Amino acid sequence: MTQTKSKKRAEESKGASSKADNKKSYQPKRAKSYSSGSQKNGRTGHLKNRNRSYNNQKQTQSPSVKVSFLGGLNEIGKNITMFECNDDIILVDCGMAFPDSEMLGVDLVIPDFTYVEQNQDRIKGIVLTHGHEDHIGALPYLLSRIKVPIYGTALTIGLVGNKLKEHNLFNQTTLNIVKPGDTVKFGCISVEFIHVNHSIPDAVAVAIHTPGGTIVHTGDFKIDFTPISGGMIDLSRFARLGDEGVLALMADSTNAERPGYTPTEQKVSDSFDNIFRRAVNQRIIIATFASNVNRVQQIINCAYKYGRKVAFSGRSMVNYMAVASELGYLDVPENVIIDLDMLSRYPSEKIVLVTTGSQGEPMSALSRMAYSDHRKVVVGAGDLIVISANPIPGNEKTVGNVVDELLKRGCEVVYESMYEVHVSGHACQEELKIMHSLVKPKYFIPVHGEQKQLRKHARLAESLGMDSKNIFIGDVGSTIELNKSYIKELAPVTAGKVFVDGLGVGDVGSIVLRDRKHLGQDGLIIIVASLDVYDGHVISGPDIVSRGFVYVRESESLLEEVRQVSLNILDDCADNNIHEWGIIKNRIKDDISKLIGMRTRRSPMILPILMEV
Amino acid sequence: MTQTKSKKRAEESKGASSKADNKKSYQPKRAKSYSSGSQKNGRTGHLKNRNRSYNNQKQTQSPSVKVSFLGGLNEIGKNITMFECNDDIILVDCGMAFPDSEMLGVDLVIPDFTYVEQNQDRIKGIVLTHGHEDHIGALPYLLSRIKVPIYGTALTIGLVGNKLKEHNLFNQTTLNIVKPGDTVKFGCISVEFIHVNHSIPDAVAVAIHTPGGTIVHTGDFKIDFTPISGGMIDLSRFARLGDEGVLALMADSTNAERPGYTPTEQKVSDSFDNIFRRAVNQRIIIATFASNVNRVQQIINCAYKYGRKVAFSGRSMVNYMAVASELGYLDVPENVIIDLDMLSRYPSEKIVLVTTGSQGEPMSALSRMAYSDHRKVVVGAGDLIVISANPIPGNEKTVGNVVDELLKRGCEVVYESMYEVHVSGHACQEELKIMHSLVKPKYFIPVHGEQKQLRKHARLAESLGMDSKNIFIGDVGSTIELNKSYIKELAPVTAGKVFVDGLGVGDVGSIVLRDRKHLGQDGLIIIVASLDVYDGHVISGPDIVSRGFVYVRESESLLEEVRQVSLNILDDCADNNIHEWGIIKNRIKDDISKLIGMRTRRSPMILPILMEV
Repeated sequence: MTQTKSKKRAEESKGASSKADNKKSYQPKRAKSYSSGSQKNGRTGHLKNRNRSYNNQKQTQSPSVKVSFLGGLNEIGKNITMFECNDDIILVDCGMAFPDSEMLGVDLVIPDFTYVEQNQDRIKGIVLTHGHEDHIGALPYLLSRIKVPIYGTALTIGLVGNKLKEHNLFNQTTLNIVKPGDTVKFGCISVEFIHVNHSIPDAVAVAIHTPGGTIVHTGDFKIDFTPISGGMIDLSRFARLGDEGVLALMADSTNAERPGYTPTEQKVSDSFDNIFRRAVNQRIIIATFASNVNRVQQIINCAYKYGRKVAFSGRSMVNYMAVASELGYLDVPENVIIDLDMLSRYPSEKIVLVTTGSQGEPMSALSRMAYSDHRKVVVGAGDLIVISANPIPGNEKTVGNVVDELLKRGCEVVYESMYEVHVSGHACQEELKIMHSLVKPKYFIPVHGEQKQLRKHARLAESLGMDSKNIFIGDVGSTIELNKSYIKELAPVTAGKVFVDGLGVGDVGSIVLRDRKHLGQDGLIIIVASLDVYDGHVISGPDIVSRGFVYVRESESLLEEVRQVSLNILDDCADNNIHEWGIIKNRIKDDISKLIGMRTRRSPMILPILMEV
Repeated sequence: MTQTKSKKRAEESKGASSKADNKKSYQPKRAKSYSSGSQKNGRTGHLKNRNRSYNNQKQTQSPSVKVSFLGGLNEIGKNITMFECNDDIILVDCGMAFPDSEMLGVDLVIPDFTYVEQNQDRIKGIVLTHGHEDHIGALPYLLSRIKVPIYGTALTIGLVGNKLKEHNLFNQTTLNIVKPGDTVKFGCISVEFIHVNHSIPDAVAVAIHTPGGTIVHTGDFKIDFTPISGGMIDLSRFARLGDEGVLALMADSTNAERPGYTPTEQKVSDSFDNIFRRAVNQRIIIATFASNVNRVQQIINCAYKYGRKVAFSGRSMVNYMAVASELGYLDVPENVIIDLDMLSRYPSEKIVLVTTGSQGEPMSALSRMAYSDHRKVVVGAGDLIVISANPIPGNEKTVGNVVDELLKRGCEVVYESMYEVHVSGHACQEELKIMHSLVKPKYFIPVHGEQKQLRKHARLAESLGMDSKNIFIGDVGSTIELNKSYIKELAPVTAGKVFVDGLGVGDVGSIVLRDRKHLGQDGLIIIVASLDVYDGHVISGPDIVSRGFVYVRESESLLEEVRQVSLNILDDCADNNIHEWGIIKNRIKDDISKLIGMRTRRSPMILPILMEV
C-alpha cells in the first residue's frame, strides 16, 4: 500500500484512544470531599449544584457502600449502576441507549464496560429491574466479555434468554428467576425485589441491604392503583423499609418535570372501548410498544368483546407476544389471534392489527404501511389507526410525518393525547412525593434522566424538606462513597458511550463520526493522480471524482477548474523537487478548499490520492 | 479526464431532471371536475378527501379566479400563492422553509419558481402579509429572476429592503409601503390590506377583490384583544366583508389542532415582571425570536422598570432591532440599550441580555453560551436564563440539550410553558371559529399547515356547518378555479422544493442528497488502481482509502483483504481480456460490498477509481 493509507492511519489514530465520544457529558475532575461547614445558598427553590456540600461527620470506621454510575445519568437509557461493599459487587441493570442524531450510522449505544471488566472477579451478579431495552439491552455485549449470573423476574429473564440466544450466549450464562418479595444474597450484599408498576409487566425495584445501610433503587416505576395485571406497586414494603431506615434512595426521574399523577392504565381501556364501539365499519390498526404487554392485553380484550380477530405486525411485536404468551403474561381467548397472512380471509371490520412503529421508526411496520411499503398490509379509507404511544423526545417530527402520510391515504388517525390512548409508565411529581415520603432516605440521588429532570427531581426532594447537602446529582462515571455518617464523591471511574455499528463494537468513534458528518453535510471531492516514481511528474490524471457535492453535469467547468489547479500544483511540486507526499496533498487540499469555498460557499471533504508508477 | 468521471456523470444525470426532491408530498394526477351528484359520506366528523365533490352548477360564463398553491400546504413554511383573474396575476407572499433532517447540508428551501417565471408577463405585483422568513425569505431568489413590484406594510418592507441589499438586489425592485385599510389595484384585481395580530408587528390579512368574487387570505394571524402595539385585529372589517359576501376563505391552520384561545401577548409581560422582580441578584438572559419585536419591547420595558441595561446578542437580533428602532416599532427609553462590548462595565444584576438561539440552533448565540463558545459572554451560576419560545417541532431535542448544558454550568433556566414566558402567534380553534363565522365564505381552503392541521381545520369548518363539498384540501402545486357557481380542481402546475446550499440554488437534488445520506451513515471505501493502457494489468495499487467507515488502525486486516480481493478481480479481468471499465468497477463494487457486509454488517459506499497509464 502507498503513502495514502499511512497518512490516513495517522489521522485516524489521533482519536483512537477515546473509544467513546462523550463530548456532551461533563466529568467531575477529581475526588471531592465536602466539609459540613460550607454555607447553604440563601435563595429558596434553588439547587446549588457546583461546590455543594454533603453531610459530613468525621469519617468513622463504619462500613460504607461505593456506588458507580456507569450510565443513565444525563441521558435517557443505558442504565447501569455498580454497588460495592467490602469485597462484593453487584450491578443493577445493563441497558443500551438509542443513538442521537449526531451519531450517524450508529445502531445502538452501550456502556463502556472497562470498569466492570477491571472488577469482574468481585462481581457476584447482575440484578435486573425489568425487561426494557434500556435496562437489559447491553447484556449480550457484557456477557460476551465476562461471566456473571443474572437475576430477574420471569418475564425479564424470558426476554433476556431470547436475546442471549440471538447472540449465541444462552448456554454461557446462568439465568435466575426471582419473584417480588425474594431476597438474594451476594456476599455481604442482599438484594430484595419489590413489585412496582411500569409499562411492562413484572417490573421490580430493589432494596440493596449492605453492612453500610440499605439503598433503595426504584428502577422505572409508576403508582397504578388499578393496573391491568400483577397488582398495584407494593407501597407497604417501601413504607416498612422507610420505617426500618434507608440510607439512600435512587429514583426514576423520567417524569420529574410533570406535575400531578400518571393516569392508570385502565384509562386506556375506556378509550379503546369507545374507539371500538364507534369504528363499526372500519378496520382498526393500533401501534404501540411491543413490550407493553398490558396494552396489548387490553386490545385483545376489546377485540374479543367486539368480535374482532387480532393479528400482530412487526418482528419485535411478534417476538414479545410469543414470550409473553408462553410465560402466561398474556391471556388470550381461543380463536382470537390470527396470522397476518390470514387477514384477507376476514372482513376488514372484523380485524384489529397490532403493530410496531409508534415512534415513526423508518423501517417499522406502521411506517411501511404509511409509505405503501408493507408487503402484506395496504391502508386507506376505511382504516382507523390509533397511535397508542407518545413520541419520545426527538421523534416528534418522524411520528408527525407518518401521521400525515396515513391521513393523505384517507385513513382516520387518532394520535393526540386528548384521546387518552396512552399513559406513561413513569411516576409524575405527586407519585414521586409518595415514594420519597414513604422511603424517608437520608440521602437522595435522582437517576434515569437528563440534567433537567435530575434537577427537577432534586428540587422536589428539597420541597419535601430534604437538605440539599444530602442530594447528589451525578454524571456518567460519577462514583460516591456513603454510609450513615457521610456521603462523598470519589474520583470518577472510566465510563461513557461505546457505539455499536453492525457487527462492530467500539470501532466507530469520534474521528469516524466526524468524517461521517462532514461527508453527509458536504460530500467529497477526490483528486487522484499517478506520479512518476523517479521525478514525480504526473503520468496520469489528475482525475476528479465527486459524490454528494453537486450535480456534476451542471458543474463541469468548476470540476475542470479543480483539475487544472490540481495539475498546476503537481507540476509545480515536481519542478521544484517537492516529493514529500504529505506536503503535496496539503497544498492540493488547501488550494482546492479555497477555490470551492469561493465558487460555492461549501466545504466538501477534499481527498487527494497519489499513486506511484 | 478518464472514464471515472464520465461514469459518475452518467450516474448523477439520472436524477438531474428532477430539480426538486419532493418525495413526501403527493401530487394529484390530473385535473378533476366533480359533479354535484356524488354522495356525501354518511359518517359524521369525517372528511372525505379522496374523490370528494364540489358544489357544481353547470359552468356558467361568470368570471372565475384561478388559484395556484406554490407552497405552504402540507408543510410549514415556503408560503406562496398565486391568484389569476382574466389577464392579471398577483402573488401573496414568497417565503422560504428550513430543511428537514433528510435534506443534509441544505441551507434553506425555496419554492420552485417555474410556473411564476412562465407567467411573469402577467404578474402585477407581490403582496406580503408580514416580515417572517417563511413569508418573505425566498424573495431575493425570485427577484434575481423576474422583475415585479412588492407591496407590504412598513416593517415588512423595511425587512425586505435589508434582505435585498444583502443580495445586491435593492435597486432592481420597487418596494411599496401600504397601510392597513389601503387597497391597491392590480388590473382587475384589488387587494385590500387588513390589520391582524401576530408575533411580528405590522402583519396583515388580504382581501382579494376580483370580478369572480372576493377571496380573504388571513396570512398568519391570531386574535389579541390587548396586544403590545398596533391595536387589535380589525375584526369589524372581516365582519363587513362577510356581510358583503366572500367567495372563499384561506386561513392559517398552524394551531388548528389546539383547542381554546392563544393567550394575549400581555400574559408574557406579567411573567417577565415576576421574573425580573425575583431575580434581584442575577443577570437575566432571555432568548427569543429576533422578529418578535413586541416581545423584545416587553423586555425593554421590564428592564427600564427594574433599572437594568439591555444588550443584544446574535446577528439577526441586532439586525432586526436596528430596523425596528429605525422605523419606530421599538420604543426605547434613553440609556437603556448598551453594546455587548460594554457588559463588563455594569454589575451582572443590572444587565438583561436579549439573544437569539431559542430553537437551540447550533451556531446561535445561546448555544455558544451553553457550550462555552461565545466570544463575549460566559454563563454560569448567577445567570437566570429564560427561553421565551416553544421548540418548533423537530427542535425539541436540540433545545433540551442547550437547557441541560446551561443547567450543568449552574445557570437557572426557565423553559417550560407553565411559566408563560411565551405565547403563540397563531389562532387556536376558538379564534379560527370567530374568523370563519365573521367571514362566512362560500368555500374554505385551509392553508399554512401539515396535512394533520389542514384536516383539523377542515373539520372545524364542517363543525360550523360548512358542507364538506365546499372545502378544498390541496397540496403544493394544486390549482383550483372558482367563482360563485363552482369550484373545480385543475391540473397541477409545476411546483416543489428547490434547495439552496451555499451559493448554489437547485444544484443539490435527490441524487446528491442520496449520496450524502449514504456517506453520512456508512462512510466510504475508495479502491484506486493504475492499469496498463495496453493490456489492462495492474501497474500500481490497488490502494484502499476509507473515510467514515471504521477505525483504520483496528481494521488493517479487513482493509488488506479488500485490497487482495480487488487485486484478484483486476488481475482476473486483465487475464480474461475484460477491459470495459464499467464491468470491472461493478465487479469490484459487488464483491467488496458482499465482503464488507459479511465481515461488518455495514454498507459503506464503494468507489472504485481506475487510471490508465
